[in-house]
Amino acid sequence: MIEVVPNVSEGRDPETISRIADAIRAVPDVLFLHVTSDPDHNRSVFTYASENGPALVQATLALFEIAVERIDLRHHTGEHPRVGAVDVVPFVPLKGAAMAECVALAEETGRLVAERFNIPIYLYEEAARAAHRRELPIIRSGGFENFAKKITDRQWQPDFGPAAVHASAGVSIIGARVPLIAFNVQLNTERIDIAEKIARSVRGVSGGLRYVRALPIHLHRRGIVQVSMNLLDYRKTPIHRAFTLVREEASRFGVDVLSTEIVGLIPEEALYAAAEWFLRIENFDPSIVLERRIEQRQK
Amino acid sequence: MIEVVPNVSEGRDPETISRIADAIRAVPDVLFLHVTSDPDHNRSVFTYASENGPALVQATLALFEIAVERIDLRHHTGEHPRVGAVDVVPFVPLKGAAMAECVALAEETGRLVAERFNIPIYLYEEAARAAHRRELPIIRSGGFENFAKKITDRQWQPDFGPAAVHASAGVSIIGARVPLIAFNVQLNTERIDIAEKIARSVRGVSGGLRYVRALPIHLHRRGIVQVSMNLLDYRKTPIHRAFTLVREEASRFGVDVLSTEIVGLIPEEALYAAAEWFLRIENFDPSIVLERRIEQRQK
Repeated sequence: MIEVVPNVSEGRDPETISRIADAIRAVPDVLFLHVTSDPDHNRSVFTYASENGPALVQATLALFEIAVERIDLRHHTGEHPRVGAVDVVPFVPLKGAAMAECVALAEETGRLVAERFNIPIYLYEEAARAAHRRELPIIRSGGFENFAKKITDRQWQPDFGPAAVHASAGVSIIGARVPLIAFNVQLNTERIDIAEKIARSVRGVSGGLRYVRALPIHLHRRGIVQVSMNLLDYRKTPIHRAFTLVREEASRFGVDVLSTEIVGLIPEEALYAAAEWFLRIENFDPSIVLERRIEQRQK
Repeated sequence: MIEVVPNVSEGRDPETISRIADAIRAVPDVLFLHVTSDPDHNRSVFTYASENGPALVQATLALFEIAVERIDLRHHTGEHPRVGAVDVVPFVPLKGAAMAECVALAEETGRLVAERFNIPIYLYEEAARAAHRRELPIIRSGGFENFAKKITDRQWQPDFGPAAVHASAGVSIIGARVPLIAFNVQLNTERIDIAEKIARSVRGVSGGLRYVRALPIHLHRRGIVQVSMNLLDYRKTPIHRAFTLVREEASRFGVDVLSTEIVGLIPEEALYAAAEWFLRIENFDPSIVLERRIEQRQK
Protein backbone atom coordinates (compact mmCIF):
# COMPACT_ATOMS: atom_id res chain seq x y z
CA MET A 1 0.00 0.00 0.00
CA ILE A 2 1.32 3.44 -1.01
CA GLU A 3 -0.12 6.76 0.09
CA VAL A 4 0.01 10.08 -1.79
CA VAL A 5 -0.42 13.36 0.09
CA PRO A 6 -0.50 16.33 -2.31
CA ASN A 7 -0.60 19.84 -0.87
CA VAL A 8 -2.61 22.14 -3.11
CA SER A 9 -2.55 25.96 -2.85
CA GLU A 10 -6.29 26.44 -2.37
CA GLY A 11 -7.97 26.36 1.03
CA ARG A 12 -10.87 28.76 0.48
CA ASP A 13 -12.84 27.79 -2.64
CA PRO A 14 -15.00 24.74 -1.83
CA GLU A 15 -15.76 24.18 -5.53
CA THR A 16 -12.11 23.61 -6.44
CA ILE A 17 -11.52 21.40 -3.42
CA SER A 18 -14.54 19.19 -4.02
CA ARG A 19 -13.82 18.88 -7.74
CA ILE A 20 -10.33 17.63 -6.96
CA ALA A 21 -11.68 15.17 -4.39
CA ASP A 22 -14.26 13.87 -6.89
CA ALA A 23 -11.62 13.44 -9.59
CA ILE A 24 -9.48 11.32 -7.24
CA ARG A 25 -12.50 9.27 -6.12
CA ALA A 26 -13.34 8.54 -9.74
CA VAL A 27 -10.10 6.59 -10.31
CA PRO A 28 -10.70 2.84 -9.92
CA ASP A 29 -8.58 1.08 -7.29
CA VAL A 30 -7.74 4.30 -5.42
CA LEU A 31 -8.94 4.73 -1.82
CA PHE A 32 -9.70 8.41 -1.23
CA LEU A 33 -8.79 8.80 2.44
CA HIS A 34 -8.96 12.41 3.51
CA VAL A 35 -8.95 16.09 2.66
CA THR A 36 -8.32 18.97 5.02
CA SER A 37 -8.38 22.67 4.09
CA ASP A 38 -7.34 25.78 5.96
CA PRO A 39 -8.41 29.25 4.81
CA ASP A 40 -5.59 31.10 6.63
CA HIS A 41 -2.97 28.78 5.17
CA ASN A 42 -5.03 28.86 1.94
CA ARG A 43 -4.01 25.28 1.35
CA SER A 44 -5.59 21.82 1.16
CA VAL A 45 -4.00 18.47 1.88
CA PHE A 46 -5.43 15.44 0.07
CA THR A 47 -4.64 11.86 1.10
CA TYR A 48 -5.28 8.77 -1.02
CA ALA A 49 -3.79 5.30 -1.20
CA SER A 50 -3.64 2.19 -3.31
CA GLU A 51 -1.72 -1.00 -3.91
CA ASN A 52 -1.90 -0.13 -7.61
CA GLY A 53 0.91 2.33 -8.51
CA PRO A 54 -0.34 3.37 -11.97
CA ALA A 55 -3.76 4.20 -10.45
CA LEU A 56 -2.01 6.60 -8.03
CA VAL A 57 -0.21 8.30 -10.93
CA GLN A 58 -3.53 8.63 -12.77
CA ALA A 59 -5.27 10.15 -9.69
CA THR A 60 -2.41 12.62 -9.24
CA LEU A 61 -2.62 13.73 -12.89
CA ALA A 62 -6.37 14.25 -12.43
CA LEU A 63 -5.62 16.44 -9.40
CA PHE A 64 -3.10 18.50 -11.40
CA GLU A 65 -5.58 18.97 -14.21
CA ILE A 66 -8.14 20.70 -11.99
CA ALA A 67 -5.63 22.59 -9.84
CA VAL A 68 -3.75 23.99 -12.86
CA GLU A 69 -6.99 25.06 -14.49
CA ARG A 70 -8.49 26.75 -11.42
CA ILE A 71 -5.61 28.12 -9.30
CA ASP A 72 -3.63 31.20 -10.27
CA LEU A 73 -0.71 31.91 -7.94
CA ARG A 74 -0.48 35.49 -9.22
CA HIS A 75 -3.64 36.21 -7.24
CA HIS A 76 -2.94 33.86 -4.35
CA THR A 77 -2.47 34.97 -0.75
CA GLY A 78 -1.99 32.76 2.29
CA GLU A 79 0.14 32.27 5.36
CA HIS A 80 1.83 29.08 4.17
CA PRO A 81 4.91 29.24 1.90
CA ARG A 82 4.29 27.82 -1.62
CA VAL A 83 5.80 27.68 -5.08
CA GLY A 84 3.08 25.86 -7.02
CA ALA A 85 -0.65 25.51 -7.56
CA VAL A 86 0.13 21.91 -6.71
CA ASP A 87 2.87 22.74 -4.27
CA VAL A 88 4.25 19.40 -3.14
CA VAL A 89 3.37 15.76 -3.86
CA PRO A 90 4.96 13.10 -1.62
CA PHE A 91 4.59 9.36 -2.29
CA VAL A 92 4.79 7.46 1.03
CA PRO A 93 5.33 3.72 1.53
CA LEU A 94 2.90 2.16 4.02
CA LYS A 95 2.99 -1.44 5.29
CA GLY A 96 4.47 -3.77 2.73
CA ALA A 97 5.63 -1.10 0.25
CA ALA A 98 9.22 -0.21 -0.66
CA MET A 99 10.67 3.30 -0.86
CA ALA A 100 12.16 2.44 -4.26
CA GLU A 101 8.66 1.90 -5.62
CA CYS A 102 7.62 5.35 -4.33
CA VAL A 103 10.67 6.96 -5.94
CA ALA A 104 9.77 5.34 -9.28
CA LEU A 105 6.17 6.60 -9.03
CA ALA A 106 7.36 10.12 -8.17
CA GLU A 107 9.66 10.14 -11.21
CA GLU A 108 6.93 8.83 -13.51
CA THR A 109 4.44 11.41 -12.19
CA GLY A 110 6.99 14.23 -12.50
CA ARG A 111 7.77 13.32 -16.11
CA LEU A 112 4.08 13.17 -17.10
CA VAL A 113 3.13 16.40 -15.31
CA ALA A 114 5.99 18.27 -17.02
CA GLU A 115 4.96 16.88 -20.40
CA ARG A 116 1.27 17.45 -20.09
CA PHE A 117 1.14 20.79 -18.24
CA ASN A 118 4.51 22.37 -19.05
CA ILE A 119 5.31 22.80 -15.36
CA PRO A 120 8.92 22.59 -14.04
CA ILE A 121 9.30 19.67 -11.62
CA TYR A 122 11.74 19.27 -8.71
CA LEU A 123 12.28 15.80 -7.26
CA TYR A 124 12.79 15.90 -3.47
CA GLU A 125 13.64 13.80 -0.40
CA GLU A 126 14.25 10.15 -1.33
CA ALA A 127 13.66 10.97 -5.01
CA ALA A 128 16.13 13.90 -5.03
CA ARG A 129 18.94 13.73 -7.62
CA ALA A 130 21.30 16.10 -5.81
CA ALA A 131 22.03 16.54 -2.09
CA HIS A 132 21.25 20.29 -2.08
CA ARG A 133 17.78 19.59 -3.53
CA ARG A 134 16.71 17.04 -0.98
CA GLU A 135 14.94 19.24 1.57
CA LEU A 136 11.57 20.80 0.83
CA PRO A 137 12.13 24.18 2.60
CA ILE A 138 15.32 24.75 0.61
CA ILE A 139 13.65 24.06 -2.74
CA ARG A 140 10.72 26.23 -1.70
CA SER A 141 12.73 29.12 -0.24
CA GLY A 142 11.94 32.46 -1.86
CA GLY A 143 8.47 31.23 -2.76
CA PHE A 144 6.56 31.55 -6.04
CA GLU A 145 7.32 35.27 -6.32
CA ASN A 146 11.10 34.71 -6.58
CA PHE A 147 11.16 31.51 -8.58
CA ALA A 148 11.47 33.20 -12.00
CA LYS A 149 14.92 34.32 -10.87
CA LYS A 150 15.86 31.16 -8.90
CA ILE A 151 15.13 28.86 -11.87
CA THR A 152 17.78 30.62 -14.00
CA ASP A 153 20.47 29.51 -11.50
CA ARG A 154 22.35 26.40 -12.75
CA GLN A 155 21.86 24.83 -9.30
CA TRP A 156 18.10 25.10 -9.73
CA GLN A 157 17.44 23.67 -13.18
CA PRO A 158 14.29 21.51 -12.85
CA ASP A 159 14.46 17.71 -13.08
CA PHE A 160 11.68 17.67 -15.66
CA GLY A 161 9.99 20.32 -17.77
CA PRO A 162 10.98 23.78 -18.99
CA ALA A 163 13.48 26.05 -17.21
CA ALA A 164 10.71 28.64 -16.93
CA VAL A 165 8.10 29.00 -14.20
CA HIS A 166 4.51 28.28 -15.31
CA ALA A 167 2.76 31.67 -15.27
CA SER A 168 -0.17 30.70 -13.06
CA ALA A 169 0.82 27.28 -11.65
CA GLY A 170 4.45 27.95 -10.69
CA VAL A 171 6.58 24.85 -10.17
CA SER A 172 5.84 21.56 -8.43
CA ILE A 173 7.90 19.51 -6.02
CA ILE A 174 7.33 15.77 -6.26
CA GLY A 175 9.09 13.05 -4.30
CA ALA A 176 9.08 10.13 -1.90
CA ARG A 177 9.44 10.16 1.87
CA VAL A 178 8.68 8.26 5.07
CA PRO A 179 5.32 8.99 6.74
CA LEU A 180 5.19 12.45 8.28
CA ILE A 181 2.88 14.01 10.84
CA ALA A 182 1.62 17.52 10.21
CA PHE A 183 0.97 18.87 13.69
CA ASN A 184 -0.09 22.43 14.52
CA VAL A 185 -0.05 23.93 17.99
CA GLN A 186 -2.36 26.87 18.71
CA LEU A 187 -1.26 29.38 21.36
CA ASN A 188 -3.41 31.66 23.49
CA THR A 189 -1.80 34.79 22.10
CA GLU A 190 -1.95 36.95 18.97
CA ARG A 191 1.78 37.72 19.12
CA ILE A 192 3.42 36.28 16.02
CA ASP A 193 6.87 37.14 17.46
CA ILE A 194 6.28 34.60 20.25
CA ALA A 195 5.26 31.90 17.72
CA GLU A 196 8.38 32.78 15.69
CA LYS A 197 10.64 32.42 18.77
CA ILE A 198 9.07 29.10 19.72
CA ALA A 199 9.33 27.78 16.15
CA ARG A 200 13.03 28.69 16.12
CA SER A 201 13.59 26.90 19.45
CA VAL A 202 11.94 23.63 18.48
CA ARG A 203 12.99 23.16 14.85
CA GLY A 204 15.97 20.94 14.10
CA VAL A 205 17.76 23.30 11.72
CA SER A 206 18.26 25.98 14.39
CA GLY A 207 19.26 23.62 17.23
CA GLY A 208 15.92 22.15 18.30
CA LEU A 209 14.54 18.66 17.77
CA ARG A 210 16.27 16.89 14.89
CA TYR A 211 13.21 15.82 12.86
CA VAL A 212 10.99 18.86 13.42
CA ARG A 213 10.25 21.64 10.95
CA ALA A 214 8.34 24.57 12.41
CA LEU A 215 6.82 27.80 11.12
CA PRO A 216 4.96 30.61 12.88
CA ILE A 217 1.50 31.20 11.37
CA HIS A 218 -1.01 33.95 12.12
CA LEU A 219 -4.57 32.58 12.30
CA HIS A 220 -6.32 35.86 11.52
CA ARG A 221 -9.83 34.36 11.69
CA ARG A 222 -9.25 33.08 15.22
CA GLY A 223 -7.14 35.99 16.47
CA ILE A 224 -4.34 33.69 17.64
CA VAL A 225 -1.01 32.36 16.40
CA GLN A 226 0.12 28.85 15.66
CA VAL A 227 3.36 26.91 15.52
CA SER A 228 2.86 24.78 12.41
CA MET A 229 5.11 21.71 12.47
CA ASN A 230 6.10 18.80 10.32
CA LEU A 231 7.38 15.80 12.26
CA LEU A 232 9.60 14.21 9.64
CA ASP A 233 10.36 11.02 11.56
CA TYR A 234 7.87 10.50 14.37
CA ARG A 235 9.68 7.38 15.58
CA LYS A 236 12.80 9.39 16.38
CA THR A 237 11.23 12.72 17.35
CA PRO A 238 7.80 11.71 18.67
CA ILE A 239 4.75 13.92 18.77
CA HIS A 240 4.66 14.05 22.59
CA ARG A 241 8.21 15.42 22.69
CA ALA A 242 7.41 18.14 20.14
CA PHE A 243 4.23 19.02 22.05
CA THR A 244 5.97 19.14 25.43
CA LEU A 245 8.81 21.31 24.16
CA VAL A 246 6.44 23.82 22.51
CA ARG A 247 4.46 24.00 25.76
CA GLU A 248 7.64 24.61 27.80
CA GLU A 249 8.92 27.27 25.41
CA ALA A 250 5.51 28.98 25.42
CA SER A 251 5.42 29.04 29.23
CA ARG A 252 8.61 31.12 29.21
CA PHE A 253 6.46 33.90 27.66
CA GLY A 254 3.51 33.29 29.99
CA VAL A 255 1.68 31.69 27.06
CA ASP A 256 -0.04 28.30 27.02
CA VAL A 257 -1.11 25.77 24.41
CA LEU A 258 -4.76 26.38 23.54
CA SER A 259 -5.18 23.28 21.39
CA THR A 260 -3.45 21.29 18.69
CA GLU A 261 -4.45 19.97 15.33
CA ILE A 262 -3.51 17.00 13.17
CA VAL A 263 -3.47 17.96 9.49
CA GLY A 264 -4.36 14.96 7.37
CA LEU A 265 -3.99 11.56 8.99
CA ILE A 266 -1.82 10.18 11.79
CA PRO A 267 -0.39 6.64 12.04
CA GLU A 268 -1.83 4.67 14.98
CA GLU A 269 1.69 3.96 16.21
CA ALA A 270 2.25 7.68 16.94
CA LEU A 271 -0.90 7.90 19.09
CA TYR A 272 -0.03 4.71 20.94
CA ALA A 273 3.44 6.08 21.67
CA ALA A 274 1.96 9.32 23.03
CA ALA A 275 -0.51 7.47 25.29
CA GLU A 276 2.28 5.18 26.49
CA TRP A 277 4.57 8.10 27.29
CA PHE A 278 2.06 10.36 29.06
CA LEU A 279 0.51 7.47 31.01
CA ARG A 280 3.98 5.98 31.79
CA ILE A 281 2.82 2.49 30.78
CA GLU A 282 5.68 0.06 31.46
CA ASN A 283 4.31 -2.94 29.56
CA PHE A 284 3.05 -1.27 26.41
CA ASP A 285 3.07 -3.11 23.12
CA PRO A 286 0.58 -2.61 20.25
CA SER A 287 -0.55 -6.18 20.86
CA ILE A 288 -2.12 -5.25 24.22
CA VAL A 289 -4.64 -3.20 22.24
CA LEU A 290 -7.75 -5.35 22.12
CA GLU A 291 -8.64 -4.66 18.46
CA ARG A 292 -5.05 -5.26 17.26
CA ARG A 293 -4.90 -8.55 19.17
CA ILE A 294 -8.16 -9.76 17.65
CA GLU A 295 -6.98 -8.84 14.11
CA GLN A 296 -3.68 -10.63 14.72
CA ARG A 297 -5.45 -13.80 15.90
CA GLN A 298 -7.91 -13.76 13.01
CA LYS A 299 -5.12 -13.77 10.41
CA MET B 1 -17.90 -10.85 19.13
CA ILE B 2 -17.94 -11.59 22.88
CA GLU B 3 -14.91 -11.58 25.16
CA VAL B 4 -14.44 -13.61 28.37
CA VAL B 5 -11.88 -12.47 30.96
CA PRO B 6 -11.61 -15.01 33.82
CA ASN B 7 -9.42 -14.15 36.80
CA VAL B 8 -7.82 -17.30 38.22
CA SER B 9 -6.16 -17.48 41.66
CA GLU B 10 -2.76 -18.67 40.45
CA GLY B 11 0.02 -16.32 39.37
CA ARG B 12 3.09 -18.33 40.32
CA ASP B 13 2.91 -21.86 38.87
CA PRO B 14 3.71 -21.70 35.14
CA GLU B 15 2.48 -25.28 34.62
CA THR B 16 -1.07 -24.49 35.76
CA ILE B 17 -1.16 -21.26 33.76
CA SER B 18 0.07 -22.83 30.53
CA ARG B 19 -2.25 -25.84 30.87
CA ILE B 20 -5.23 -23.50 31.19
CA ALA B 21 -4.06 -21.49 28.18
CA ASP B 22 -3.65 -24.68 26.12
CA ALA B 23 -7.10 -25.93 27.10
CA ILE B 24 -8.67 -22.66 25.89
CA ARG B 25 -6.65 -22.71 22.65
CA ALA B 26 -7.86 -26.25 21.96
CA VAL B 27 -11.50 -25.17 21.65
CA PRO B 28 -12.43 -24.64 17.97
CA ASP B 29 -13.73 -21.16 17.06
CA VAL B 30 -12.24 -19.50 20.16
CA LEU B 31 -9.54 -16.81 19.72
CA PHE B 32 -7.13 -17.02 22.66
CA LEU B 33 -6.11 -13.38 23.08
CA HIS B 34 -3.99 -12.91 26.17
CA VAL B 35 -2.83 -14.10 29.56
CA THR B 36 -1.10 -12.04 32.23
CA SER B 37 0.11 -13.33 35.60
CA ASP B 38 1.38 -11.56 38.68
CA PRO B 39 3.19 -13.45 41.45
CA ASP B 40 2.53 -10.83 44.16
CA HIS B 41 -1.17 -10.75 43.32
CA ASN B 42 -0.89 -14.55 42.78
CA ARG B 43 -3.47 -14.24 40.06
CA SER B 44 -3.74 -14.68 36.28
CA VAL B 45 -6.11 -12.99 33.89
CA PHE B 46 -7.03 -14.86 30.70
CA THR B 47 -8.72 -13.19 27.73
CA TYR B 48 -10.42 -15.00 24.86
CA ALA B 49 -13.15 -14.14 22.40
CA SER B 50 -15.48 -15.62 19.84
CA GLU B 51 -18.62 -14.99 17.83
CA ASN B 52 -19.69 -18.48 18.87
CA GLY B 53 -21.31 -18.38 22.35
CA PRO B 54 -21.36 -22.13 23.07
CA ALA B 55 -17.62 -22.31 22.22
CA LEU B 56 -16.98 -19.67 24.92
CA VAL B 57 -18.94 -21.71 27.46
CA GLN B 58 -16.94 -24.80 26.50
CA ALA B 59 -13.60 -22.95 26.85
CA THR B 60 -14.64 -21.61 30.26
CA LEU B 61 -15.59 -25.10 31.48
CA ALA B 62 -12.16 -26.35 30.31
CA LEU B 63 -10.54 -23.56 32.33
CA PHE B 64 -12.54 -24.52 35.44
CA GLU B 65 -11.57 -28.15 35.04
CA ILE B 66 -7.84 -27.45 35.32
CA ALA B 67 -8.12 -24.68 37.92
CA VAL B 68 -10.33 -26.73 40.24
CA GLU B 69 -8.01 -29.72 39.97
CA ARG B 70 -4.77 -27.78 40.57
CA ILE B 71 -5.58 -24.81 42.85
CA ASP B 72 -6.27 -25.18 46.55
CA LEU B 73 -7.30 -21.95 48.24
CA ARG B 74 -6.52 -23.41 51.67
CA HIS B 75 -2.84 -23.05 50.78
CA HIS B 76 -3.13 -19.88 48.73
CA THR B 77 -1.52 -16.57 49.62
CA GLY B 78 -1.52 -13.39 47.58
CA GLU B 79 -2.10 -9.66 47.77
CA HIS B 80 -5.30 -9.67 45.73
CA PRO B 81 -8.67 -10.41 47.38
CA ARG B 82 -10.29 -13.66 46.14
CA VAL B 83 -13.05 -16.12 46.98
CA GLY B 84 -12.47 -18.81 44.33
CA ALA B 85 -9.88 -20.85 42.47
CA VAL B 86 -11.65 -19.33 39.49
CA ASP B 87 -12.45 -16.07 41.19
CA VAL B 88 -14.46 -14.08 38.68
CA VAL B 89 -15.61 -14.69 35.09
CA PRO B 90 -17.03 -11.71 33.18
CA PHE B 91 -18.59 -12.03 29.71
CA VAL B 92 -18.13 -8.75 27.81
CA PRO B 93 -19.93 -7.63 24.62
CA LEU B 94 -17.57 -6.26 21.95
CA LYS B 95 -18.61 -4.68 18.64
CA GLY B 96 -21.89 -6.10 17.39
CA ALA B 97 -22.75 -8.13 20.52
CA ALA B 98 -25.62 -7.52 22.93
CA MET B 99 -25.38 -7.46 26.72
CA ALA B 100 -28.40 -9.80 26.91
CA GLU B 101 -26.42 -12.43 25.04
CA CYS B 102 -23.59 -12.12 27.58
CA VAL B 103 -26.03 -12.45 30.47
CA ALA B 104 -27.43 -15.65 28.92
CA LEU B 105 -23.93 -17.10 28.49
CA ALA B 106 -23.02 -16.21 32.10
CA GLU B 107 -26.16 -17.98 33.36
CA GLU B 108 -25.51 -21.05 31.22
CA THR B 109 -21.88 -21.22 32.35
CA GLY B 110 -22.85 -20.74 36.01
CA ARG B 111 -25.41 -23.53 35.84
CA LEU B 112 -22.98 -25.97 34.20
CA VAL B 113 -20.08 -25.15 36.57
CA ALA B 114 -22.31 -25.68 39.61
CA GLU B 115 -23.55 -28.99 38.22
CA ARG B 116 -20.22 -30.36 37.12
CA PHE B 117 -17.91 -29.14 39.92
CA ASN B 118 -20.29 -28.62 42.83
CA ILE B 119 -19.17 -25.01 43.26
CA PRO B 120 -21.56 -22.27 44.50
CA ILE B 121 -22.03 -19.59 41.81
CA TYR B 122 -22.90 -15.91 42.24
CA LEU B 123 -24.17 -13.97 39.23
CA TYR B 124 -22.90 -10.36 39.21
CA GLU B 125 -23.13 -6.99 37.42
CA GLU B 126 -25.56 -7.15 34.47
CA ALA B 127 -26.32 -10.82 35.29
CA ALA B 128 -27.08 -10.12 38.99
CA ARG B 129 -30.49 -11.23 40.24
CA ALA B 130 -30.61 -8.87 43.25
CA ALA B 131 -29.40 -5.28 43.63
CA HIS B 132 -27.20 -6.03 46.65
CA ARG B 133 -25.33 -8.71 44.69
CA ARG B 134 -24.47 -6.58 41.70
CA GLU B 135 -21.04 -5.30 42.70
CA LEU B 136 -18.01 -7.57 42.74
CA PRO B 137 -16.28 -6.13 45.85
CA ILE B 138 -19.44 -6.64 47.93
CA ILE B 139 -19.85 -10.28 46.87
CA ARG B 140 -16.14 -10.84 47.47
CA SER B 141 -15.92 -9.01 50.82
CA GLY B 142 -14.55 -11.17 53.62
CA GLY B 143 -12.68 -13.33 51.12
CA PHE B 144 -12.46 -17.11 50.84
CA GLU B 145 -11.62 -17.46 54.53
CA ASN B 146 -14.96 -16.05 55.69
CA PHE B 147 -17.23 -17.42 53.01
CA ALA B 148 -18.24 -20.56 54.94
CA LYS B 149 -20.04 -18.23 57.33
CA LYS B 150 -21.27 -15.70 54.72
CA ILE B 151 -22.92 -18.38 52.60
CA THR B 152 -25.24 -19.39 55.50
CA ASP B 153 -26.78 -15.87 55.44
CA ARG B 154 -30.11 -15.86 53.54
CA GLN B 155 -28.91 -12.79 51.63
CA TRP B 156 -25.97 -14.80 50.31
CA GLN B 157 -27.53 -18.01 49.04
CA PRO B 158 -25.77 -18.80 45.72
CA ASP B 159 -27.61 -18.48 42.38
CA PHE B 160 -26.53 -21.98 41.38
CA GLY B 161 -24.97 -24.92 43.25
CA PRO B 162 -24.83 -25.98 46.88
CA ALA B 163 -25.10 -23.58 49.82
CA ALA B 164 -21.69 -24.80 50.95
CA VAL B 165 -18.27 -23.51 49.93
CA HIS B 166 -16.19 -25.95 47.85
CA ALA B 167 -13.33 -27.03 50.15
CA SER B 168 -10.45 -26.17 47.81
CA ALA B 169 -12.07 -24.09 45.04
CA GLY B 170 -14.28 -21.78 47.13
CA VAL B 171 -17.06 -20.06 45.20
CA SER B 172 -17.11 -18.42 41.77
CA ILE B 173 -18.57 -15.13 40.59
CA ILE B 174 -19.81 -15.17 37.00
CA GLY B 175 -21.50 -12.35 35.13
CA ALA B 176 -21.70 -9.88 32.31
CA ARG B 177 -20.36 -6.34 32.16
CA VAL B 178 -19.17 -3.55 29.82
CA PRO B 179 -15.46 -3.56 28.90
CA LEU B 180 -13.24 -2.63 31.83
CA ILE B 181 -9.63 -1.49 32.00
CA ALA B 182 -7.41 -2.99 34.70
CA PHE B 183 -4.82 -0.29 35.31
CA ASN B 184 -2.13 -0.41 37.99
CA VAL B 185 -0.03 2.57 39.05
CA GLN B 186 3.35 1.90 40.64
CA LEU B 187 4.67 4.47 43.15
CA ASN B 188 8.26 5.20 44.09
CA THR B 189 7.72 4.28 47.72
CA GLU B 190 7.39 1.16 49.87
CA ARG B 191 4.81 2.79 52.14
CA ILE B 192 1.55 0.88 51.84
CA ASP B 193 -0.21 3.53 53.96
CA ILE B 194 0.38 6.06 51.17
CA ALA B 195 -1.03 3.68 48.53
CA GLU B 196 -4.01 3.07 50.82
CA LYS B 197 -4.65 6.83 51.20
CA ILE B 198 -4.40 7.40 47.45
CA ALA B 199 -6.69 4.45 46.68
CA ARG B 200 -9.27 5.90 49.09
CA SER B 201 -9.04 9.33 47.44
CA VAL B 202 -9.53 8.12 43.87
CA ARG B 203 -12.13 5.38 44.21
CA GLY B 204 -15.76 6.18 43.56
CA VAL B 205 -17.23 4.57 46.66
CA SER B 206 -15.33 6.87 49.04
CA GLY B 207 -15.90 10.12 47.10
CA GLY B 208 -13.39 9.81 44.25
CA LEU B 209 -14.01 9.15 40.57
CA ARG B 210 -17.38 7.51 39.96
CA TYR B 211 -16.25 4.50 37.87
CA VAL B 212 -12.96 3.72 39.61
CA ARG B 213 -12.25 0.86 42.01
CA ALA B 214 -8.86 1.02 43.69
CA LEU B 215 -6.84 -1.16 46.07
CA PRO B 216 -3.41 -0.65 47.66
CA ILE B 217 -1.06 -3.55 46.83
CA HIS B 218 2.42 -4.25 48.17
CA LEU B 219 4.78 -5.44 45.40
CA HIS B 220 7.22 -7.25 47.69
CA ARG B 221 9.46 -8.42 44.82
CA ARG B 222 10.00 -4.86 43.60
CA GLY B 223 10.07 -3.16 47.01
CA ILE B 224 7.36 -0.68 46.03
CA VAL B 225 3.61 -0.23 46.37
CA GLN B 226 0.90 -0.02 43.76
CA VAL B 227 -2.56 1.45 43.41
CA SER B 228 -4.39 -1.31 41.55
CA MET B 229 -7.46 0.03 39.75
CA ASN B 230 -10.40 -1.14 37.74
CA LEU B 231 -11.85 1.49 35.42
CA LEU B 232 -15.43 0.26 35.17
CA ASP B 233 -16.56 2.66 32.46
CA TYR B 234 -13.59 4.20 30.68
CA ARG B 235 -15.83 6.41 28.53
CA LYS B 236 -17.14 8.21 31.61
CA THR B 237 -14.05 8.04 33.84
CA PRO B 238 -11.17 7.89 31.35
CA ILE B 239 -7.75 6.44 32.03
CA HIS B 240 -5.98 9.83 31.78
CA ARG B 241 -8.20 11.26 34.51
CA ALA B 242 -7.51 8.32 36.84
CA PHE B 243 -3.77 8.60 36.11
CA THR B 244 -3.67 12.35 36.67
CA LEU B 245 -5.57 12.16 39.94
CA VAL B 246 -3.32 9.41 41.33
CA ARG B 247 -0.26 11.46 40.37
CA GLU B 248 -1.67 14.57 42.09
CA GLU B 249 -2.60 12.66 45.24
CA ALA B 250 0.85 11.03 45.33
CA SER B 251 2.57 14.41 45.00
CA ARG B 252 0.92 15.51 48.24
CA PHE B 253 3.13 12.90 49.97
CA GLY B 254 6.23 13.79 47.92
CA VAL B 255 5.75 10.58 45.98
CA ASP B 256 5.68 10.20 42.19
CA VAL B 257 4.35 7.68 39.68
CA LEU B 258 7.15 5.29 38.74
CA SER B 259 5.26 3.53 35.98
CA THR B 260 1.88 2.07 35.17
CA GLU B 261 0.67 -1.22 33.83
CA ILE B 262 -2.26 -2.43 31.75
CA VAL B 263 -3.46 -5.84 32.97
CA GLY B 264 -4.92 -7.77 30.08
CA LEU B 265 -5.97 -5.77 27.03
CA ILE B 266 -7.10 -2.18 26.47
CA PRO B 267 -9.63 -0.95 23.88
CA GLU B 268 -8.04 1.30 21.23
CA GLU B 269 -10.64 3.97 21.98
CA ALA B 270 -9.18 4.44 25.50
CA LEU B 271 -5.66 5.02 24.17
CA TYR B 272 -6.91 7.42 21.51
CA ALA B 273 -8.79 9.39 24.17
CA ALA B 274 -5.64 9.61 26.32
CA ALA B 275 -3.49 10.80 23.40
CA GLU B 276 -6.17 13.32 22.43
CA TRP B 277 -6.41 14.67 25.98
CA PHE B 278 -2.70 14.94 26.76
CA LEU B 279 -1.85 16.38 23.32
CA ARG B 280 -4.91 18.70 23.42
CA ILE B 281 -5.90 17.72 19.87
CA GLU B 282 -8.92 19.83 18.84
CA ASN B 283 -9.92 17.87 15.73
CA PHE B 284 -9.55 14.30 16.97
CA ASP B 285 -11.76 11.57 15.62
CA PRO B 286 -10.78 7.88 15.25
CA SER B 287 -11.14 8.34 11.50
CA ILE B 288 -8.05 10.60 11.37
CA VAL B 289 -6.02 7.53 12.33
CA LEU B 290 -4.49 6.35 9.05
CA GLU B 291 -5.06 2.61 9.62
CA ARG B 292 -8.68 3.09 10.73
CA ARG B 293 -9.38 5.25 7.67
CA ILE B 294 -7.94 2.65 5.31
CA GLU B 295 -9.99 -0.14 6.97
CA GLN B 296 -13.12 2.00 6.72
CA ARG B 297 -12.57 2.68 3.00
CA GLN B 298 -11.82 -0.97 2.24
CA LYS B 299 -15.16 -2.14 3.67
